Amino acid sequence: MVEDMTTPLLSDSEAPADALPVGLTSPTVAILGSGDFSRSLAVRLVASGVQVVVGSRCVNRIPSGLFPEAVELRNQEGAVSQEVCLVFMALFPEHYCSLLGLQSALAGKVLVDVSNGTEMNIHGPSNAERLADLFPDSLVVKGFNTVSTWELQTGAHDGSRQVMICSNSTEGKKKVVQLARQMGFHPVDMGGLSAAREIEVAPLRLFPSWSGPVVITFLLFLFFYGYGFLRGILLPFLAQGHNAFYRLALDLVNESLPAVALVTLALVYFPGLFAAWLQLWRGTKYRRFPSWLDNWLQRRKQLGLLSFLCAALHGVYSLCLPLRRITLLRLVNTAYKQVKAGTEEPWDELGVWRSDLYISCGVLGLGVLSLLAITSLPTVGNTLNWREFTFVQSGLGYIALTLSIMHTLFFGWDFAFHIEAYSFYMPPSYLLAVVLPCIVLVSRCFLLLPCIFTRLTRIRRGWESKRNCPVLQHHHVVPNGIP
Amino acid sequence: MVEDMTTPLLSDSEAPADALPVGLTSPTVAILGSGDFSRSLAVRLVASGVQVVVGSRCVNRIPSGLFPEAVELRNQEGAVSQEVCLVFMALFPEHYCSLLGLQSALAGKVLVDVSNGTEMNIHGPSNAERLADLFPDSLVVKGFNTVSTWELQTGAHDGSRQVMICSNSTEGKKKVVQLARQMGFHPVDMGGLSAAREIEVAPLRLFPSWSGPVVITFLLFLFFYGYGFLRGILLPFLAQGHNAFYRLALDLVNESLPAVALVTLALVYFPGLFAAWLQLWRGTKYRRFPSWLDNWLQRRKQLGLLSFLCAALHGVYSLCLPLRRITLLRLVNTAYKQVKAGTEEPWDELGVWRSDLYISCGVLGLGVLSLLAITSLPTVGNTLNWREFTFVQSGLGYIALTLSIMHTLFFGWDFAFHIEAYSFYMPPSYLLAVVLPCIVLVSRCFLLLPCIFTRLTRIRRGWESKRNCPVLQHHHVVPNGIP
Amino acid sequence: MVEDMTTPLLSDSEAPADALPVGLTSPTVAILGSGDFSRSLAVRLVASGVQVVVGSRCVNRIPSGLFPEAVELRNQEGAVSQEVCLVFMALFPEHYCSLLGLQSALAGKVLVDVSNGTEMNIHGPSNAERLADLFPDSLVVKGFNTVSTWELQTGAHDGSRQVMICSNSTEGKKKVVQLARQMGFHPVDMGGLSAAREIEVAPLRLFPSWSGPVVITFLLFLFFYGYGFLRGILLPFLAQGHNAFYRLALDLVNESLPAVALVTLALVYFPGLFAAWLQLWRGTKYRRFPSWLDNWLQRRKQLGLLSFLCAALHGVYSLCLPLRRITLLRLVNTAYKQVKAGTEEPWDELGVWRSDLYISCGVLGLGVLSLLAITSLPTVGNTLNWREFTFVQSGLGYIALTLSIMHTLFFGWDFAFHIEAYSFYMPPSYLLAVVLPCIVLVSRCFLLLPCIFTRLTRIRRGWESKRNCPVLQHHHVVPNGIP
Repeated sequence: MVEDMTTPLLSDSEAPADALPVGLTSPTVAILGSGDFSRSLAVRLVASGVQVVVGSRCVNRIPSGLFPEAVELRNQEGAVSQEVCLVFMALFPEHYCSLLGLQSALAGKVLVDVSNGTEMNIHGPSNAERLADLFPDSLVVKGFNTVSTWELQTGAHDGSRQVMICSNSTEGKKKVVQLARQMGFHPVDMGGLSAAREIEVAPLRLFPSWSGPVVITFLLFLFFYGYGFLRGILLPFLAQGHNAFYRLALDLVNESLPAVALVTLALVYFPGLFAAWLQLWRGTKYRRFPSWLDNWLQRRKQLGLLSFLCAALHGVYSLCLPLRRITLLRLVNTAYKQVKAGTEEPWDELGVWRSDLYISCGVLGLGVLSLLAITSLPTVGNTLNWREFTFVQSGLGYIALTLSIMHTLFFGWDFAFHIEAYSFYMPPSYLLAVVLPCIVLVSRCFLLLPCIFTRLTRIRRGWESKRNCPVLQHHHVVPNGIP
Repeated sequence: MVEDMTTPLLSDSEAPADALPVGLTSPTVAILGSGDFSRSLAVRLVASGVQVVVGSRCVNRIPSGLFPEAVELRNQEGAVSQEVCLVFMALFPEHYCSLLGLQSALAGKVLVDVSNGTEMNIHGPSNAERLADLFPDSLVVKGFNTVSTWELQTGAHDGSRQVMICSNSTEGKKKVVQLARQMGFHPVDMGGLSAAREIEVAPLRLFPSWSGPVVITFLLFLFFYGYGFLRGILLPFLAQGHNAFYRLALDLVNESLPAVALVTLALVYFPGLFAAWLQLWRGTKYRRFPSWLDNWLQRRKQLGLLSFLCAALHGVYSLCLPLRRITLLRLVNTAYKQVKAGTEEPWDELGVWRSDLYISCGVLGLGVLSLLAITSLPTVGNTLNWREFTFVQSGLGYIALTLSIMHTLFFGWDFAFHIEAYSFYMPPSYLLAVVLPCIVLVSRCFLLLPCIFTRLTRIRRGWESKRNCPVLQHHHVVPNGIP
Repeated sequence: MVEDMTTPLLSDSEAPADALPVGLTSPTVAILGSGDFSRSLAVRLVASGVQVVVGSRCVNRIPSGLFPEAVELRNQEGAVSQEVCLVFMALFPEHYCSLLGLQSALAGKVLVDVSNGTEMNIHGPSNAERLADLFPDSLVVKGFNTVSTWELQTGAHDGSRQVMICSNSTEGKKKVVQLARQMGFHPVDMGGLSAAREIEVAPLRLFPSWSGPVVITFLLFLFFYGYGFLRGILLPFLAQGHNAFYRLALDLVNESLPAVALVTLALVYFPGLFAAWLQLWRGTKYRRFPSWLDNWLQRRKQLGLLSFLCAALHGVYSLCLPLRRITLLRLVNTAYKQVKAGTEEPWDELGVWRSDLYISCGVLGLGVLSLLAITSLPTVGNTLNWREFTFVQSGLGYIALTLSIMHTLFFGWDFAFHIEAYSFYMPPSYLLAVVLPCIVLVSRCFLLLPCIFTRLTRIRRGWESKRNCPVLQHHHVVPNGIP
């Protein structure tokens, strides 16, 4: 729903504002290699008002028009001549050694290693460190590897602008920082060359903060699916020969999803409560939480979004129920039986209320969760101040949790109190799913009791119980108003 | 669906680019207090290449590892020693007076008040002004209170970067502005210390631009719900003893929501039309609109999003209808009656067309409204130029309004022309809801009449009718082409 | 769902940080004209700490309070006095000639043309060039036309900050660049005044990157709708007099939408595969793709979003099916017939599995497509690194394609193998729709064959087949490890 604002023409001629004051003192920069990255880098450098020389192994094979006109094409030896002080190594790290002949020509120059890590070299030295070993007289700087060729071409107004940089040479780093800024990026100093490993691996990350929550959600799904399969399909089949395997494809999924969504939503609010109780028990907020709790607290957003995903899928699956063939079969047969019996289906006031209430709670709960998901979008969240953020994430979050619990309880109704609900001595899965959320909700209500609430607020404002800090108590003797 | 890019390691070692040129001249900054804010501030300052000293009332109680290693921990007296020129007051304002002993040590130094307002001190002086009274020889600057500890820790690439600053001391303000910029924030000068009140209250805001539209939408909902209750449930119950209270939970909500959505959508386009007629009548665009109209015009986005919310809820509720118990009961009983009567249900060509048309219009109207809602997201809207924005917001908006009206009219069909539609002399609520939207649509069509459209365009391009500006007419005598 | 953070009070007093260091040397800027743009510009300039003079043709008619207090109001002659060095021309270009009397007063000054193009002057010179002709002794700079009055008022934290600037005068450009930066914008140098045409037309763009994909999607829809009309409605009517015109409004639309969604989704992945085969055949990646392929590759995002839109509409339409009058009629009549026949509807295991499977695949496919659509939002996509982006766009994309094909095949089941599926010798439209996606999927699987995959990876890492670059082969003789 968003359009790219860059046409090739524009991106070639666009000069970021910071390029302007540089004027004549603009340095000549060389790029070794003529691949995609080299080309995109050249386009951006030219657009930033920098003189660019590209050194290629086979200059003649580069089709005209591949590089902007302002770029000079030379062979590799010619590219790293005197007037050049900064060289981008835009070739694959396994070809670095093919440049050993240029060792003396590159001495004293800044070499920028733009390579990414591969899974292969995860145990050896980083590419940048290998480059520094090969060219001991050059100033090797790591950087620009996190930037994609796409971001280079479309300019700074698109994509992330951060460029992580590290080097053992302060001078080299300084030059690259200046150049990065001239190109419209935000350089970030990551320290010495030993940080190159981390920078090289950064583009290999695959949703690191999502892996834990996704695994937990998946395991929960497996559990509820397996439990439902055992209780509702396998055991009845073994015991009574009742074939209900057709329920595998949709019914069982739609039974497991809401259970997962409910438990995951409870897992979002559980660590916060645990932290509060820990603070109350310790009587201070100045002791660090155990690291597992810290990690958990930092994954609440991901858990919340996964809970929303499951809830939304459950919603869509439920809406699909009337479209199923089995629904048609059941309806027609119910009508047929009614006719056989010769009576109208009796009015069922309780059933009507129950179904309306659990549908209403479900719809509203999902609606509130959607609002939460929307405020998780970075730009929407950024426009909120802290109070608004808390109102949405905590206030609306507990409303969503309450509505979800009510949805489940209205759905279950008095079913849990009948003996037939416990076929094979196994409680229905919605009953299992509702336990943790109820604990969270009750625990939260306890925290709102005046005596506990006051104490917690005091602790969070910096107060500590006596056994923790006798010095602090002393300070509090000072009268608490304006003297 | 978005991951946090910051690991603790990264945020500690990350140095925003602007920190680099500062080099050795980097000032030592003290933070008084050792709470969450202090800790986050210290992390960010260290990451920005600033020397940090934290002064705490009980240094020994601070667990090792709570602050970054580069931070020096001292008692409060030690922290505000000579080499420090800037002190962050990271303690609660009610403890300011406990620092009176440091008055002479803090003389001539910049004190940064980072406190937020509380509802209690809404009538007294602001915290920063109280601090200035307590330390008359220091340069008190207000700022950083709008930044959350979270934003401090995760760095400038996340969250809003704006930092509002005010002070009576130009020198103090200048130093804080520089520091804020070094930390990667965008300092915004708000003037003298008297602006501190406003800055302190900023984090207390709770969706100020939403309150009006939310109240209006809620009142509309109450009206339509109450009206429907009276007309469809209470009066029939009193008059004929007909029990339809089961309709309260879902039917009545799903009847009120589309009415609210429709009226709210009309309220989005009403003020623009009113403004246009006002300009036509006044014959000029240079007279300000009354402030209620200005306010209304600025709340159109919120009204539109609330209209979308109601419409989406109505859509989901409607899709839930076949899942209800009552639907099953009705279906089975219809089939039963058909069998009793001994005839097939006759083909109902008109009914089929009508239901298909109102469903189609509803789906398409909601689809267009969704596109509008998506372009309300800041980043999506930002990529549009003015013409595209107008096309989406005005063009698509009127299409959505037209489709919604058609949805309602197809739903109502010829029902409004039958006497039984007016039970208890009250028209059905969909008829009430469709009045204002129709007025808006007709009024909009009038504005497209050539004679009116031309005059309005001229007025919007700066033309004024004679009675408004005789001088201007004089100017227009100059021939209107290139001389 | 997002609130505007600017109150008039705030935006008047807010001074972007860069304004601070300017101090007393801040230049006086004049604005000619007193319309909306003038007013907003004045507000922003004052907020940036700039002295502003507004020159109007009828000063007395300007209501007090329209401009900020710090702005001085004069007549046009008075406004362009000596101390002013930069003049914004905030009037309509057709009134430029009315200022000819000021020619000498404006000599040597920087005139900023902020006008937009209109469709009328698309063939003549640009407004800025006309202005330069009228005032040959002034330094005419084009700029700020892409900024809306809204963005001027609400400040840089909202809306796009880019300001495109061009001029033949280096000095004039420099001054405007400085001022733009002081106002919190990102000036972008577009070169000489001949670029003014392009800058003036920029705000007239109406989704240029969307037109192609929208047209293709629309034509596909027309084709499938027309084909379905012919095959399912018109020919049966002509041949057998069977009236099925009631299917026009909803059935036929809901039949065409999934076909369009499926083909469009295949069109997203087709050009990438085509490019891969081209590279394999050419044996190099250094030859440019034909421009139609380049264009197609750049429109994949738009095609994907349109595919999602069609799929989502198809989903909603399908969920609406049970709400239709015709569904009720059919249900009741099925039950009636069942009773007449005196038998229960027999259990249909295959039918139940089939309907559950195609519904499941559809729901999951649409779910995966939604994730893709969400990562298309700029801010969400920006937080992903390249690998994550590829994982989502390519990996999840092919999963969505596979699920959609399965959805279609489960829906069709063995229907395509029966002779009655080809009424009037025309295959059902779902069969037509599934051809291209299957080709794409099979072609993609071929690319994963080890021999082809290895060769493609080598080509993409820079390797070229012999006939392309003999010099390169020479280089590869150098041993590939660390020497």
